Amino acid sequence: MCGIFAYLNYQVPRTRKEILETLVKGLQRLEYRGYDSAGVAVDGPKNNKDNNNNSITLIKKRGKVKNLDEELYKKDSDLDLDAVLGTHFGLAHTRWATHGEPSAVNCHPHRSDKDNEFVVVHNGIITNYKELKKYLNSKGYEFESETDTEVIPKLTKYVYDNRERDTISFSTLVERVIQQLEGAFALVFKSRHFPGEAVATRRGSPLLIGVRSESELSAEHIPIQYNSAPYYSVLRDHPGTPQGAEGLMGPTEPTALFKEGVQEKNIHNRPDAVGGGKAVEYYFASDASAIIEHTNKVLYMEDDDVAIVTNGKLSIHRLNRQAGEDPVRLIKTLQMELQQIMKGNFEAFMQKEIFEQPESVVNTMRGRIVFDTDTVVLGGLKDHLKEIKRCRRLIMIGCGTSFHAAVATRQILEELTELPVMVELASDFLDRNTPVFRDDVCFFISQSGETADTLMALRYCKERGALTVGITNTVGSSISRDTDCGVHINAGPEIGVASTKAYTSQFVSLVMFGLMVSEDRVSLQKRRGEIIQGLKDLPELIKKVLALDNKIKAIADELYEQRSLLVMGRGFNYATCLEGALKIKEITYMHSEGILAGELKHGPLALIDKHMPVIMIIMRDACYQKCQNALEQVTARSGRPIILCCQDDVEITKNAYKTIELPHTVDCLQGILSVIPLQLMSFHLAVLRGYDVDCPRNLAKSVTVE
Amino acid sequence: MCGIFAYLNYQVPRTRKEILETLVKGLQRLEYRGYDSAGVAVDGPKNNKDNNNNSITLIKKRGKVKNLDEELYKKDSDLDLDAVLGTHFGLAHTRWATHGEPSAVNCHPHRSDKDNEFVVVHNGIITNYKELKKYLNSKGYEFESETDTEVIPKLTKYVYDNRERDTISFSTLVERVIQQLEGAFALVFKSRHFPGEAVATRRGSPLLIGVRSESELSAEHIPIQYNSAPYYSVLRDHPGTPQGAEGLMGPTEPTALFKEGVQEKNIHNRPDAVGGGKAVEYYFASDASAIIEHTNKVLYMEDDDVAIVTNGKLSIHRLNRQAGEDPVRLIKTLQMELQQIMKGNFEAFMQKEIFEQPESVVNTMRGRIVFDTDTVVLGGLKDHLKEIKRCRRLIMIGCGTSFHAAVATRQILEELTELPVMVELASDFLDRNTPVFRDDVCFFISQSGETADTLMALRYCKERGALTVGITNTVGSSISRDTDCGVHINAGPEIGVASTKAYTSQFVSLVMFGLMVSEDRVSLQKRRGEIIQGLKDLPELIKKVLALDNKIKAIADELYEQRSLLVMGRGFNYATCLEGALKIKEITYMHSEGILAGELKHGPLALIDKHMPVIMIIMRDACYQKCQNALEQVTARSGRPIILCCQDDVEITKNAYKTIELPHTVDCLQGILSVIPLQLMSFHLAVLRGYDVDCPRNLAKSVTVE
Repeated sequence: MCGIFAYLNYQVPRTRKEILETLVKGLQRLEYRGYDSAGVAVDGPKNNKDNNNNSITLIKKRGKVKNLDEELYKKDSDLDLDAVLGTHFGLAHTRWATHGEPSAVNCHPHRSDKDNEFVVVHNGIITNYKELKKYLNSKGYEFESETDTEVIPKLTKYVYDNRERDTISFSTLVERVIQQLEGAFALVFKSRHFPGEAVATRRGSPLLIGVRSESELSAEHIPIQYNSAPYYSVLRDHPGTPQGAEGLMGPTEPTALFKEGVQEKNIHNRPDAVGGGKAVEYYFASDASAIIEHTNKVLYMEDDDVAIVTNGKLSIHRLNRQAGEDPVRLIKTLQMELQQIMKGNFEAFMQKEIFEQPESVVNTMRGRIVFDTDTVVLGGLKDHLKEIKRCRRLIMIGCGTSFHAAVATRQILEELTELPVMVELASDFLDRNTPVFRDDVCFFISQSGETADTLMALRYCKERGALTVGITNTVGSSISRDTDCGVHINAGPEIGVASTKAYTSQFVSLVMFGLMVSEDRVSLQKRRGEIIQGLKDLPELIKKVLALDNKIKAIADELYEQRSLLVMGRGFNYATCLEGALKIKEITYMHSEGILAGELKHGPLALIDKHMPVIMIIMRDACYQKCQNALEQVTARSGRPIILCCQDDVEITKNAYKTIELPHTVDCLQGILSVIPLQLMSFHLAVLRGYDVDCPRNLAKSVTVE
Repeated sequence: MCGIFAYLNYQVPRTRKEILETLVKGLQRLEYRGYDSAGVAVDGPKNNKDNNNNSITLIKKRGKVKNLDEELYKKDSDLDLDAVLGTHFGLAHTRWATHGEPSAVNCHPHRSDKDNEFVVVHNGIITNYKELKKYLNSKGYEFESETDTEVIPKLTKYVYDNRERDTISFSTLVERVIQQLEGAFALVFKSRHFPGEAVATRRGSPLLIGVRSESELSAEHIPIQYNSAPYYSVLRDHPGTPQGAEGLMGPTEPTALFKEGVQEKNIHNRPDAVGGGKAVEYYFASDASAIIEHTNKVLYMEDDDVAIVTNGKLSIHRLNRQAGEDPVRLIKTLQMELQQIMKGNFEAFMQKEIFEQPESVVNTMRGRIVFDTDTVVLGGLKDHLKEIKRCRRLIMIGCGTSFHAAVATRQILEELTELPVMVELASDFLDRNTPVFRDDVCFFISQSGETADTLMALRYCKERGALTVGITNTVGSSISRDTDCGVHINAGPEIGVASTKAYTSQFVSLVMFGLMVSEDRVSLQKRRGEIIQGLKDLPELIKKVLALDNKIKAIADELYEQRSLLVMGRGFNYATCLEGALKIKEITYMHSEGILAGELKHGPLALIDKHMPVIMIIMRDACYQKCQNALEQVTARSGRPIILCCQDDVEITKNAYKTIELPHTVDCLQGILSVIPLQLMSFHLAVLRGYDVDCPRNLAKSVTVE
């Protein structure tokens, strides 16, 4: 989670103030990824009387990016903001705390020592940091933070201090360092010893590089430079065993950091690097939204790529080439528009995204459903359809909201595919070492496509030979790349930490999958026709639900001082209860809980009295009568339920404390309409309680650590 | 578990009505031990014109004790209620069905034959009853019930009918009988052949004897009378193996029942018997609550003691004395007050049931696990084992706590069976019209065996041809009758609405199922051995957890005014979070929620601040490191977690607000130990909040409506 941004200008003169502004703006675009603290690293002494141009200054501030921004321009700053720097490399980072509380000392960039010889920004988690820290401690390195990240600059300096010859390159240093790291990371390095040079690498966490040049780019295809060095995998052969780590790192053991075979390469001035000697700017970022305003030319890095910019030239290094590996990285052109990532007239990104849903569901269906012929084609899946139909079962895997999309569509997929469908929380699925077989089809649902648990589950299933299907909102994401096939839900960028439009688009995508699989089942044609008609009408019905905003706001006015809230329903609307309760939890910090109405009598009914706010979902579907029973139980205990029901349902209205009447659609799509009032409710509750809707405390948008 | 009560008056004239009233009152005190049916045995013909004073009448009634009470005084009864009986021995029993459904024919007392030569009441389980029954059948004895108990009076008559001399004593008969019994029992015998005599014995089930006399007791120390007969242990050398039993009981084998060396002893008028010739009354009961209103002088019997009352004199017999054995039984003075009875020393049934768990898990395993050979046999499933092993998947279905037992054991069943295991809430399973196939095996888990949703799901699965397996605590319940096969968890009656000991016994039963299925998998033997050893040690470890009660109470003192409470964990302990939170919901009405620790970052972390009480479960298992990450996230947000962890885990303790340190067991059984502190916590919270623990508002014990 954390956001990385870095900016390198080569022979493009910028004042230090301009550079800082670029870094801060980059962070603001990434702030949805974390906002516990922020920091930058730029060249220059605090005191400009000191002429050592190789010094590096770190400025860090707890809290949101704007706190950092204010800090940068404080009067007592030693930085000369007007100094013009022809070539410069600056790092920036916005943090979501995973190790160590949000505080200045735990802020990134982290450094190797008091002289800032090496500084690093990191997104991810280093799982073997304790072993590394112990080793470095034994070598006399002192740590100043509680973070896992700090071992990286310290280890870099250790490798540098113990280098076998003076001419070691920055990229070789980093290659050696990452061989010792376990876990997930995207990293960008800066060093006093290599002024104007940048090194970036990743494993498991996203990182891409934007390139901006007035002249034509010298290469749009970048061949990878392979290193002959063996890959030191001692730690990876013994994951999690301190013994293995100690064996490697222990002072008596010959350390792998300096084994033979690592050859220095002169990569300067080669034809296979971008930007040969001309004026050029590079932007390193965790995602494209921070780059798009500068350039639409980007390179997506792969796991264990090491990218280096030296003398303005970008090249990519890897260790030995694996079979089937693409030996080239492409510079691609982003198809994103700037306005898509702006808030517009809304108070918050989340609100904007809720109101975008009439369009975003259309974007999800666009080009995939032919309404005249009741045909559905998901291009990414059509080559695997036979295999899918023959499978033993479908397993849908996700976390949080994405998991709820699986719950929401489970029943209709069971009905349309006539296959057993399992839904799994990715972390639990992994914890259980769930049996997976070659004839299983596994779906991986993730808005960002980078959710660490889901990604790990994907790798687990691939190893066991299952067919893997990605359902993501992010082209080029790890999940979209690593799955055998998939569906891009095409909801557009989602900035609000609390997911809204991605949920409804995931929902529609999964329903379309069911429709595509069942196309040749005669007995299901009537049902399919109803659902496809329902999808066609969906945008208009969503608009009608959004028109209830004022009424929902009025209910929120009554509820916002409550501490707890229960949301109950069953059948096709059970997932709405889970998802609605999660929204309320995430941004209002009220203790809300989604409860299966069928479980009411098995415990939760004890919570009901006239003080406990209850929202119930009672639609005219197969569960209508059973839901009415639950309603009677609640009212018999003096509960005062707020009920989401169908229009003009007098039976329900007479037992309700308040109702929110929704347009009716086919049962299996009703959950799309019923979730929206709860999205709106959570938004209004959060505003009334005085919270920042887009930046809920403790949370970040994309959870790229386990 | 059943309750036994028996009353002997020697030279103390009582009307038959007074005797019946004493017997019924005794049963009422024991009714918490079972209430499926009740019965008595008293002297006397139904028609008092028949002067055969040695006849015995049995009166039995299905249902609670008050049904029996009404039956006794019906106008058409042949018993002369006003007849005065100077010396008389009456038996009574209230039943909790373990074998055979609750019906009049399965009621105790059981008898040897239509003339009621020998009648017996029994608490416990005879695990080798099938072999004994087969043997007795081969000898022409006809059985009238489905119970295990009935072999006991039949076997007694068989020994009596085949006695070597006429003068055999009642106690010798019983000594010979119990040498043939496997399992657990407390037994009281009455016979036409020995009017006014009582014999009682026990092994594994409780039994005590109250003594009431106007004169001083002749002896407060009763020396044990040792019998020189060898202890015939053929069955015990081959526990659980029908071969061993057949070898003994087969008609060609010289039977141990009549071996030489058993000498008759005249024990009458000896100084080492209590109550020599004077007026005295004896009360035999499963616990002191049924005795205390009559006398506070009691003798607690030990395993394999045989107590006999002849001519008003009580003596204790045993076979050969073992080294270190106390050769004396004391008549003790009970320190109990009348008001403590029923619930014993406990404030509530729920509390009592929590503290019964060291015994109830033993009862669940009794006769099913042979610890020496690592074999597990669930009698009810063994005929379907092949079919189960061939199935496509296991589906475990339940509601509330029973569902949590499925969640708790899912992973170990996946591991041991190598089959896909689905867990389903019964109501959601039905709402979804979940696809079920002929090659599925469906488990239906319900304490009462009557849970409406689970029963409906059972019918749904039967219609689709799946093999159905019941996991219940109630023999003769709808689920136990309608399933193809099943396991009786044998936890004893559960009175508290919030289920506790049934959960741990369901848990143990499902683990035993996994062990049974995996018996022939070579690669799993080491794992199976660990688990079986873990099950063996479980009762002692549960006692250690229960010893933490005061510490848990102290934590409850701090928490009881809170409104919300989160319980977090993952892996093998996730179910504990769900179940612990449900307990707290049910009886404290605090809004508690169980949260998968792996989902923390996907939403629930927003709830964490220094005010929100959080309980975390972090055990040293495969999820330990991941749980530590979750802990760091919670403490980074100023959360003050109360942590259930392993003993002496300093790593965890230093980050905890408080810890509850639990003994360590094999990972898949740890959930049994980790749930108990939460059961205790919910109890203390409810008491502190002033609620009736056994009758939570809005809830009922057995949910027999959808």
